[in-house]
Amino acid sequence: MAESRSSVGGGSLLVAWQLKDKNVLIVGGGEVASQRIESVLTGDGLITLLAPSKGVHTRTKHLIDTYPDRITYYDRRFSGPAELHKMDMVLTALDDVNRSREICELCRKAKIPVNAADIPDLCDFYFGAQVRDGPLQIMISTNGNGPRMAALMKKKIEGALSGKEGGAIEKVGELRAQLKERAPGVGGPLGRKRMKWMSEVCNTWDIDELTHLDHDTIAKLLDEGWEKNTVPTLDQLLGRSKQICSPRYPAFLSSQWLLATSSFALGAACTVLVLSRRK
Amino acid sequence: MAESRSSVGGGSLLVAWQLKDKNVLIVGGGEVASQRIESVLTGDGLITLLAPSKGVHTRTKHLIDTYPDRITYYDRRFSGPAELHKMDMVLTALDDVNRSREICELCRKAKIPVNAADIPDLCDFYFGAQVRDGPLQIMISTNGNGPRMAALMKKKIEGALSGKEGGAIEKVGELRAQLKERAPGVGGPLGRKRMKWMSEVCNTWDIDELTHLDHDTIAKLLDEGWEKNTVPTLDQLLGRSKQICSPRYPAFLSSQWLLATSSFALGAACTVLVLSRRK
Repeated sequence: MAESRSSVGGGSLLVAWQLKDKNVLIVGGGEVASQRIESVLTGDGLITLLAPSKGVHTRTKHLIDTYPDRITYYDRRFSGPAELHKMDMVLTALDDVNRSREICELCRKAKIPVNAADIPDLCDFYFGAQVRDGPLQIMISTNGNGPRMAALMKKKIEGALSGKEGGAIEKVGELRAQLKERAPGVGGPLGRKRMKWMSEVCNTWDIDELTHLDHDTIAKLLDEGWEKNTVPTLDQLLGRSKQICSPRYPAFLSSQWLLATSSFALGAACTVLVLSRRK
Repeated sequence: MAESRSSVGGGSLLVAWQLKDKNVLIVGGGEVASQRIESVLTGDGLITLLAPSKGVHTRTKHLIDTYPDRITYYDRRFSGPAELHKMDMVLTALDDVNRSREICELCRKAKIPVNAADIPDLCDFYFGAQVRDGPLQIMISTNGNGPRMAALMKKKIEGALSGKEGGAIEKVGELRAQLKERAPGVGGPLGRKRMKWMSEVCNTWDIDELTHLDHDTIAKLLDEGWEKNTVPTLDQLLGRSKQICSPRYPAFLSSQWLLATSSFALGAACTVLVLSRRK
């Protein structure tokens, strides 16, 4: 029923932290700081960056220049507890372990979540390798067993995705929003009916088909599907005859077919050759 | 250099929250609460559970019985701000939206991270679909665009993994720990050398080979590899001749080869048949 006892524990609580318009203090301006800035920008956070300009990496500089409305940069070091005023999160990316430790202690007193790069025991949370495709975000954590393995896992996961998933998820989000407009309200039997119908759409349509959802198709799907309490396929919706599959090239050009026919021809040719020599 | 502007923003900050021996209050005992309990147990958190027994799901009940050292259960409702004393995180899983809202407001005042199931606008963080294999944890978030799509992505990712990744990561963690014992210290040139060597091991050995790392092999790899500033392959380490690949079946049994030879034979046979009829 529950997970087996041996698999419980020893991990982290993986969560999607909400930073929209929250204040995030980043201390340090090196390459790691530039990665932190990108992560916070992904979450639409408002960044205050403290770093003497001589230590600012070109990537960090580029980000400061590109997002002046999101990043407030101060060319100086962390000066004391007053820097934490109104901060919702603090990230340090410093070479100076003692300085990081001091900042973390201040954060803990002020109950502000904090991460100190490369000093796991000071962190309220860790970062991991990440994959992003629009609204789809994937994080890979090896729980401190090596960033290289996380990078390998990231590559494996990227290889398993077609690159169309983000687009499909976006369209499903649009369909869901329009369905909620048609049939509004939170929870209850209607909420359950909505959830069930959305699930069926996602199970019936494949990723590729979901990316075809545009304004007209969504309206048609709601008219012909939701209103009639059914889930038509994309082909049914567009009035096309059902296709078992829709390969990009005609089936007779597939590599298996090519291999078979060319081997057949080669077999025939060799036989003709052998038999003609015998004569 | 940085991400293109269009792909920045609109997401979350995905993090691995550290809960080891932290106090987590869970309010509610239904099915969603049981999922929350499992997530917190994964992170080794200490749970205080508030839920009138009549609403406690069988899964929740099973978890309370299985982890008495981790879960302190009280058969009652949330009574007021005093419940938040010494709590590091609060999760509500209640049908009563107003009750959830009250609890979230108290948490915000006390600066305690909070998640309210099914009420996104009240949450400091969201949960996502998760994959776990020992030290490997993967989270999939669609940023509120539908749990069904997250479940589909989870299936896709599970399909891309062989099930040996967790074991391999564990072994790499052991190798890393033993290397650190041999060559201790934080950062500096030695730290960089360690990191580079570990990276090369992970790039040279595949997942399957990494799972073969045991006590003896690790000692040998450190002796023959680290000490000699090289990275031997598993075959070199075990004194086996190098194999380009080690397929499970001989190559001539592969489906492509079967297809080609049978087509060749069929072509030959047909030709013989046709020619013999002509005579």
